[in-house]
Amino acid sequence: MPKINRYEDINEIDREAKKDYIDRHSPFVHCEPSATAGEAFKVTVKVGNEYSHPDDMDHHISGVALYNKDTKLAEATLLAGALGGQGEKGNATVTFDVVLTKNASLVAQSYCTKHGVWESDAVSVAVA
Amino acid sequence: MPKINRYEDINEIDREAKKDYIDRHSPFVHCEPSATAGEAFKVTVKVGNEYSHPDDMDHHISGVALYNKDTKLAEATLLAGALGGQGEKGNATVTFDVVLTKNASLVAQSYCTKHGVWESDAVSVAVA
Amino acid sequence: MPKINRYEDINEIDREAKKDYIDRHSPFVHCEPSATAGEAFKVTVKVGNEYSHPDDMDHHISGVALYNKDTKLAEATLLAGALGGQGEKGNATVTFDVVLTKNASLVAQSYCTKHGVWESDAVSVAVA
Amino acid sequence: MPKINRYEDINEIDREAKKDYIDRHSPFVHCEPSATAGEAFKVTVKVGNEYSHPDDMDHHISGVALYNKDTKLAEATLLAGALGGQGEKGNATVTFDVVLTKNASLVAQSYCTKHGVWESDAVSVAVA
Repeated sequence: MPKINRYEDINEIDREAKKDYIDRHSPFVHCEPSATAGEAFKVTVKVGNEYSHPDDMDHHISGVALYNKDTKLAEATLLAGALGGQGEKGNATVTFDVVLTKNASLVAQSYCTKHGVWESDAVSVAVA
Repeated sequence: MPKINRYEDINEIDREAKKDYIDRHSPFVHCEPSATAGEAFKVTVKVGNEYSHPDDMDHHISGVALYNKDTKLAEATLLAGALGGQGEKGNATVTFDVVLTKNASLVAQSYCTKHGVWESDAVSVAVA
Repeated sequence: MPKINRYEDINEIDREAKKDYIDRHSPFVHCEPSATAGEAFKVTVKVGNEYSHPDDMDHHISGVALYNKDTKLAEATLLAGALGGQGEKGNATVTFDVVLTKNASLVAQSYCTKHGVWESDAVSVAVA
Repeated sequence: MPKINRYEDINEIDREAKKDYIDRHSPFVHCEPSATAGEAFKVTVKVGNEYSHPDDMDHHISGVALYNKDTKLAEATLLAGALGGQGEKGNATVTFDVVLTKNASLVAQSYCTKHGVWESDAVSVAVA
């Protein structure tokens, strides 16, 4: 508590509304599967994949964080209105340059002002 | 106070150390000159252009913020070590998706744990 | 740009609406005038003094920061609704413990989602 | 993942080093047991109770967050050096004014740059 909501494979879910609910809140880590040690490596955290989330003043994605295992690398605060504002929907998307030095396991979290904390699956990056 | 340090054109500066000091602390806004209203538009804030900044534990770029005129759109906190850590240098770089609805004037700020707040020149974006 | 709005002495202002506008957005630093070096010292940043600010979803105080001269000590992000929410008003108030080692000059900033950045007068703290 | 470390009662722990490790990382919620609906209510998040944590540049408490059940109310970023800096120890302490409207269950998290996320026990507040 706070509850950490986790992504579930929406292909296994029947109800359209539930697919939408899970997908639009879930952060996804997008990056190459391998990185060169010591060089800048782009990691994108995008909230939602097939669905998008409201950017209403009282209901929006207000932040994302990026962890390598238990180490926080970076986080972003997103203000309501940055994705179009009242009545609009979007996919909060932030790309961070990070420098990895050994094999990494990246996890993202997102925070919805109405529906709390959501956590991505871990993404492995081979670093050499 | 806090002092807002502003970018100066380093071509007008003679001393190499001063060019480096100004450039490595200054945030730059990188984006297309025009955007489509209501669509996601990528804005990159990169700290430093020709020079890079230490990522030492006691001396690093700990955050960037992005404004459209006086409105904050987003900000990011960057933890020491995310760009290689002690002894390494890098260019803190964060890309935000934003949705603009009319002509915009984007300004970035960066924060160095030793040398304070730095502000970019404004970048105009034509939105149609 | 972004414009840094600064506190003006509201006793010098005639119009009630302007007094309210300036006061309710201005952060004030509240602390003892002297501190013991190396010991925890409480510094409160309170937004507004005689007036209070809406906590509406689309119009609230979303953050405060505390600087000692040009050095950021701490900042806080305040989510809409934390001060009562839609239709309510309040004074965003955050107290940080800081440890000072020599004479300090404390400055606070606050950020309103509609009216931008506001900066307090500096408060001197004698440290011995 | 990231792992959420939780407070354990250190009276049940034998090893002094482990008592210290758990206590100095754990956030504690300090507040009155009851609040008046609609009025400002002070909630202090303090990291550590009987032990204190280093404020070294590469090892410090860099943030705390306060939740009411699954709703984030506020968070604070604390910069290295704010509690005395290299070689010193302290208890990161932030007090937020919040306005509660019904019975609440407050939970705090803290983040150590070396030892990850820590979560407090929940504290119930009766609101009338």
